[in-house]
Amino acid sequence: MTTSQTSVSHPAEYTELLGRLATVHDLHAASAVLGWDQMTYLPAGAGGPRGRHLATLTRLAHEHFTDDRIGVLLDSLGPFESSLPSDSDEASLLRIARQDYRRAVRVPGSFMATFAEHQSASYQAWAVARPANDWEAVTPILERTVDLSREYAGFFPRTAHLADVFVDEAEPGLDVASVRELFSSLRARLVPMVRQIIAQPRPDDTFLTRAYPVDTQWQFGEMVARKLGYDFERGRQDRAPHPFTTSFSRNDVRITTRLSETDLRFGLFATMHEAGHGMYEQGVAPGLDGTLLGSGASSGVHESQSRLWENVVGRSRGFWKWGYSRLQSTFPGQLGDVTADQFYRAINRVEPSLIRVEADEMTYNLHIMMRFDFELALLDGSLRVTDLPEAWNARFKDDLGITPPSNQDGCMQDVHWFASPIAGQFQGYTIGNVLSAQCFDRACEVHPSIPTEIESGEFGTLLSWLQTNLHALGRKYDVNDTIVRATGRALTIEPYLDYLRDKFGDLYDLS
Amino acid sequence: MTTSQTSVSHPAEYTELLGRLATVHDLHAASAVLGWDQMTYLPAGAGGPRGRHLATLTRLAHEHFTDDRIGVLLDSLGPFESSLPSDSDEASLLRIARQDYRRAVRVPGSFMATFAEHQSASYQAWAVARPANDWEAVTPILERTVDLSREYAGFFPRTAHLADVFVDEAEPGLDVASVRELFSSLRARLVPMVRQIIAQPRPDDTFLTRAYPVDTQWQFGEMVARKLGYDFERGRQDRAPHPFTTSFSRNDVRITTRLSETDLRFGLFATMHEAGHGMYEQGVAPGLDGTLLGSGASSGVHESQSRLWENVVGRSRGFWKWGYSRLQSTFPGQLGDVTADQFYRAINRVEPSLIRVEADEMTYNLHIMMRFDFELALLDGSLRVTDLPEAWNARFKDDLGITPPSNQDGCMQDVHWFASPIAGQFQGYTIGNVLSAQCFDRACEVHPSIPTEIESGEFGTLLSWLQTNLHALGRKYDVNDTIVRATGRALTIEPYLDYLRDKFGDLYDLS
Repeated sequence: MTTSQTSVSHPAEYTELLGRLATVHDLHAASAVLGWDQMTYLPAGAGGPRGRHLATLTRLAHEHFTDDRIGVLLDSLGPFESSLPSDSDEASLLRIARQDYRRAVRVPGSFMATFAEHQSASYQAWAVARPANDWEAVTPILERTVDLSREYAGFFPRTAHLADVFVDEAEPGLDVASVRELFSSLRARLVPMVRQIIAQPRPDDTFLTRAYPVDTQWQFGEMVARKLGYDFERGRQDRAPHPFTTSFSRNDVRITTRLSETDLRFGLFATMHEAGHGMYEQGVAPGLDGTLLGSGASSGVHESQSRLWENVVGRSRGFWKWGYSRLQSTFPGQLGDVTADQFYRAINRVEPSLIRVEADEMTYNLHIMMRFDFELALLDGSLRVTDLPEAWNARFKDDLGITPPSNQDGCMQDVHWFASPIAGQFQGYTIGNVLSAQCFDRACEVHPSIPTEIESGEFGTLLSWLQTNLHALGRKYDVNDTIVRATGRALTIEPYLDYLRDKFGDLYDLS
Repeated sequence: MTTSQTSVSHPAEYTELLGRLATVHDLHAASAVLGWDQMTYLPAGAGGPRGRHLATLTRLAHEHFTDDRIGVLLDSLGPFESSLPSDSDEASLLRIARQDYRRAVRVPGSFMATFAEHQSASYQAWAVARPANDWEAVTPILERTVDLSREYAGFFPRTAHLADVFVDEAEPGLDVASVRELFSSLRARLVPMVRQIIAQPRPDDTFLTRAYPVDTQWQFGEMVARKLGYDFERGRQDRAPHPFTTSFSRNDVRITTRLSETDLRFGLFATMHEAGHGMYEQGVAPGLDGTLLGSGASSGVHESQSRLWENVVGRSRGFWKWGYSRLQSTFPGQLGDVTADQFYRAINRVEPSLIRVEADEMTYNLHIMMRFDFELALLDGSLRVTDLPEAWNARFKDDLGITPPSNQDGCMQDVHWFASPIAGQFQGYTIGNVLSAQCFDRACEVHPSIPTEIESGEFGTLLSWLQTNLHALGRKYDVNDTIVRATGRALTIEPYLDYLRDKFGDLYDLS
């Protein structure tokens, strides 16, 4: 499904455009390095200047990208683009460049710099305030984020919903209405299953919270990530308070994790999750590296890869048929008395919980849907920042039957609103869940040996299928087109619902 | 001796200039972050793109700095500058900006980018080739470094020596002739002392090469650095194959060290050395931070601070009067049978050795002087790169009576020629040695309590004197002016020779 590089000769304007876009790309890559550093190793007292450095890089990238000359080049390259196959790298690059350019020229560089500096300060304030459960400290910051997000939306022509521009940036081709439709059909099928399951007795999982030395967890996690196919020669893992993946090129894709001495799940599944993101970026076609097309297609498509490895593979019976004896011998004192079946049931225990990143597969999407709704409400003004904690807790009670005891574990738990605009941040997680099953389903259709291979710790066929059919495409196509090219059909919730029913029907009574 | 911020109102041109220079500064800071990352955490396979990112940042910084508008602003600010006290921050900034600008406009941006990319590739090649002792692999790279360095020198008006521009960049106000004069007078006094000492029996130092667990060394080193006054809230320490210090702002000054399981000296003295550099950068006046003046005055002045803490303090009897019992109780198995006096003699053992960074205080300067001579010869063509190993080994034999068994521990040992131009890289170390004694001498003249304080692990008076009289000045003045302002007189070798004679006369027969 990947297309070969066309061997046409390039007009001088195309070469010039590539050079100019490379400068923009390098500035973004440098920003990403500074961002990675901020999340991993930045000294406590160093925040202020770092914000200014990031603001400058963002402003310069924006200035270089919105240079009139880029518009002139794009216009003059129209005939060249028409002469190319539409799925060639060159045509895709010109299409995406034009789309990004048209968006970027609407936003003043000074605004981009202000927003970048605000984001950096905002992240730092959150990193201090969250452990202290200090909601008051971040209220004015979040209010400013909402204001800046609204100002940003205002640069664009009026759309059906103010948040459309944010959804489209995260998921090119989708909008608030299409996400709402997806979420409501999924919710209608999911809520009854969740209600059924949580009325049943939970399996024991207390052995997952015994004392697990973090260094040993770290080594086991790296072994697993390597085994799945994450390439440590072209990446590395570090610790961060909120795990993330970042890419400076396909040869430098870094993952992070966090480890808990008293919960084996955090580090283990965070590592598989981030390795999934990492393998996607490492698998982008070499010819796209360093260009506008050299990254994943969207947040949701990205999330499909992290969730596929974390959940569809990493929380499967087959995976632990291979992995459990290894894990057990790594932690004999902690897991010596636990069978593989007990372990499998424990890591798939469904239980309404406070923290999104610790939620099970069944309830996870309910966390996402409420955040999506809050984003829209904050942005359109129907919910004020000061009223967020109350609204959050009420919705939590409704959807999951529990109430967060503090904002720290409630509306302050996620980094997103403190490091990004207020909207478009969360829908990708559920789109990713849905798509993860669709991808795996299709891969197994083509290679029926995959489930058996996973049972023997072989992941090469699966990874290779994903690389060829999805990763290599990079950002050449919009979300819908990418999904069709990779899986042969449009995004659909059926494989995901089948997956959930099969898996959890085996663990709980879902009759 | 620091000057207060003038409270004059600034013309609009001055504010505009500051804004433009801040952009240049931020690009350099971002480059420095990428450089730090390259030396500490970059994945093995990630080199290529990183070189391009650095090249782009360097080119953009150069383009922004050499913008005609900067020249116009500098010209128009002449009358403003004349109206200011010459030691005001504003007048200094304009003076240094003009000096840097005049230099920068001579060099094409494309050359700067080419050189930056070459340096990044060169460092990566060296990092692989040195452990493999593969001189052939780096020969063509070093030849290109020589060519590029010559090309760079060619952008400037002819001076007495082709290397003058490199020396002046490293040590503003000095040139090849002044360094040669300093070196020759020092050499004349040093060589007889070295000859006298190395003819005498060496103290035992075998206990320094027992097994020292690196984690414990790390903790001890951080304790010492903190105690000396390096601020970990505004910095951090990481491991790197070749220790260095880098600053992104006075609030983010990072040091690195390397540790050997079988040699206590490496990590311990590297940490004190780099902490010395770090404290200098952390001590720049806040008002200069983020400007052209917000860093140390020169390589040599910088080195005076690292050598002061590493040697004048860190290898003194007084320091270990405080420190030895702490070190001994940290490593009871390794040092339990060693007295403080034995330890002191061992860390000051004079012995001709292969590796500069491991050399003792007496022979160290001979390592520097030969490198300085080789740099001049490589640059002016009187020595070819391919002949360097032979010349290196011959000079080593002459000066130190030993012959390197391999290029790995000979002419390939230092990172400098593989990460910088071929000239101007080393003279600062000896200038620093000389100046370290002069600074300490002056500090003790003003505060005679300093030596006693050091014996009780109190370093605050010394650091505070250095901060006020030297660190706070940043880059406001050239080397000579900085030294006179800090110590009350011009650079002189006498305090350094007195220091060496006192210290080593106590350990060896120097009659």
